[in-house]
Amino acid sequence: MYRIGVDLGGTNIAVGLVNDNYEIVKKSTTPTFATREAALIVDDIARLCKKVCADAEIELSAVESIGVASPGLVNNEKGMVEYANNLPFMNLPMSEMLRERLDFENISLANDANAAALGEATAGAAKGTSSSVMVTLGTGVGGGVIIDGKLLCGFNCAAGELGHIVIEANGRQCTCGRRGCWETYSSATALTKMTNEKIEECRAAGRYTKMFEAERVNGRTACDCMRMGDEAAKEVYDKYVQYLAIGLTNIINIFEPEVISLGGGISGEGQSLIDALLPLIGGNNDAEKRTSLRIATLGNDAGIIGAAAL
Amino acid sequence: MYRIGVDLGGTNIAVGLVNDNYEIVKKSTTPTFATREAALIVDDIARLCKKVCADAEIELSAVESIGVASPGLVNNEKGMVEYANNLPFMNLPMSEMLRERLDFENISLANDANAAALGEATAGAAKGTSSSVMVTLGTGVGGGVIIDGKLLCGFNCAAGELGHIVIEANGRQCTCGRRGCWETYSSATALTKMTNEKIEECRAAGRYTKMFEAERVNGRTACDCMRMGDEAAKEVYDKYVQYLAIGLTNIINIFEPEVISLGGGISGEGQSLIDALLPLIGGNNDAEKRTSLRIATLGNDAGIIGAAAL
Repeated sequence: MYRIGVDLGGTNIAVGLVNDNYEIVKKSTTPTFATREAALIVDDIARLCKKVCADAEIELSAVESIGVASPGLVNNEKGMVEYANNLPFMNLPMSEMLRERLDFENISLANDANAAALGEATAGAAKGTSSSVMVTLGTGVGGGVIIDGKLLCGFNCAAGELGHIVIEANGRQCTCGRRGCWETYSSATALTKMTNEKIEECRAAGRYTKMFEAERVNGRTACDCMRMGDEAAKEVYDKYVQYLAIGLTNIINIFEPEVISLGGGISGEGQSLIDALLPLIGGNNDAEKRTSLRIATLGNDAGIIGAAAL
Repeated sequence: MYRIGVDLGGTNIAVGLVNDNYEIVKKSTTPTFATREAALIVDDIARLCKKVCADAEIELSAVESIGVASPGLVNNEKGMVEYANNLPFMNLPMSEMLRERLDFENISLANDANAAALGEATAGAAKGTSSSVMVTLGTGVGGGVIIDGKLLCGFNCAAGELGHIVIEANGRQCTCGRRGCWETYSSATALTKMTNEKIEECRAAGRYTKMFEAERVNGRTACDCMRMGDEAAKEVYDKYVQYLAIGLTNIINIFEPEVISLGGGISGEGQSLIDALLPLIGGNNDAEKRTSLRIATLGNDAGIIGAAAL
């Protein structure tokens, strides 16, 4: 039995044909061109769904279900992408539009962070567990929560906004309008900002740091310089890890999942990040059975696989 | 059909016989005497279970189930109260001990805050909803989370520790060992502390406040003085409400429940507390369907009713 998973992003549309073992057997991508009309984007999704079937030499009718992961506020009950920041979607009836184009009934939608969490729970770092949380450390901090094998959606499909848990009352300004959200401390964007602040601080204090030499400061700069023995970079990284640990301990105290998996750019730091976090993570985690903290394993395929598993 | 709900507290044991409509038809209580041996406390629970049946002139065999709400870390799968702060319990096999004493099979356990949340969801402020959160503003800040009609328990029965979400990194010291937990800002204990701090501040600044005249400062002092027009008391209350709103918005961003109900001593402030909170609660709450913020309605009976509903 095959399923199709669609991972719609601001940059690319990726569509995968997924088998019973949640392996991607065919995959096809195309640029999103996010500024064009929504209908044209849906046209491309439909085209790629047909293409992966053709590539695998099967009929679309042999596919069990199609799942679509989209950024933004996604309402599966209504079959709608209600709103997406980087896409021209406003109450877009995605399910119906795809049904028309593909003459296919069984279509589900989910938020992309939620789909990725379901992907990791189905075939990745949290495979075999019934409760897990995925935290994505990218431009923002995204979250997806699986409880008893099901995605936590909330009353109006907007639950799991873990990046917008305030961890510092009256702290850094967040794009959501509040202050001190976790994402303003633990996203790659936040790490870049902290790095730039430390560079300024060093410059003002006449203190040398290898970070001066970075061509372009990003989320990796502090990590890379720290590994070369730079003290100022280590201060940035330590502070970053401290805030990340606060947020992760919150997640444990809230959900006590079997597994928390870390995805997104920063998770590229791998086991050394886990090792730095573990001593700082307390809370209920002192109990006999511990929440296991892991690096997500599916990378960019998590969205496709999670969408297929919807 | 009848069920029995047991609400075991540090001060009293309360047992209720509950009917199909989740109304308490008979109730009996006895002091816990928390320093005595655990077996004697379980003896008393068993005795009260028999007593409420006798009072209602039914046999215990006519009862469908017995549920016990206990403070602490409660593991229903193992039938154990693993640990309770104010009771002499350490891996106490509560279910088995009650089974022996009552010759009764169907016994369930839950943490008391969780049971209260289930009570409010079954017969109180969140009746008729499938997703709700109860937040108890008492000595600490307790939480119980209902998702799809079921209690969120977590991997090791310690989920829903909402009072231990850090909302102020490096903030006030919490009894859990971390700093800045929500409970250090939003419990009745915290409000009392903030009130005392303001009284000291006023005294040092030679500023008069009605709060000077309180015989004993508690969680109501600031609220009462504010209602009499005292400015310093209003400053305390406003600050308290701001922190409470931060924590509640976090809950909305995490769970997006249909209803959040507020229980515990501070919830005695009633609708005026809700009215003060609503303008400060943002997050996903801007969406069409709003999470409804309500005062819990069952009071001390929430634990009994929730235990009966387990």
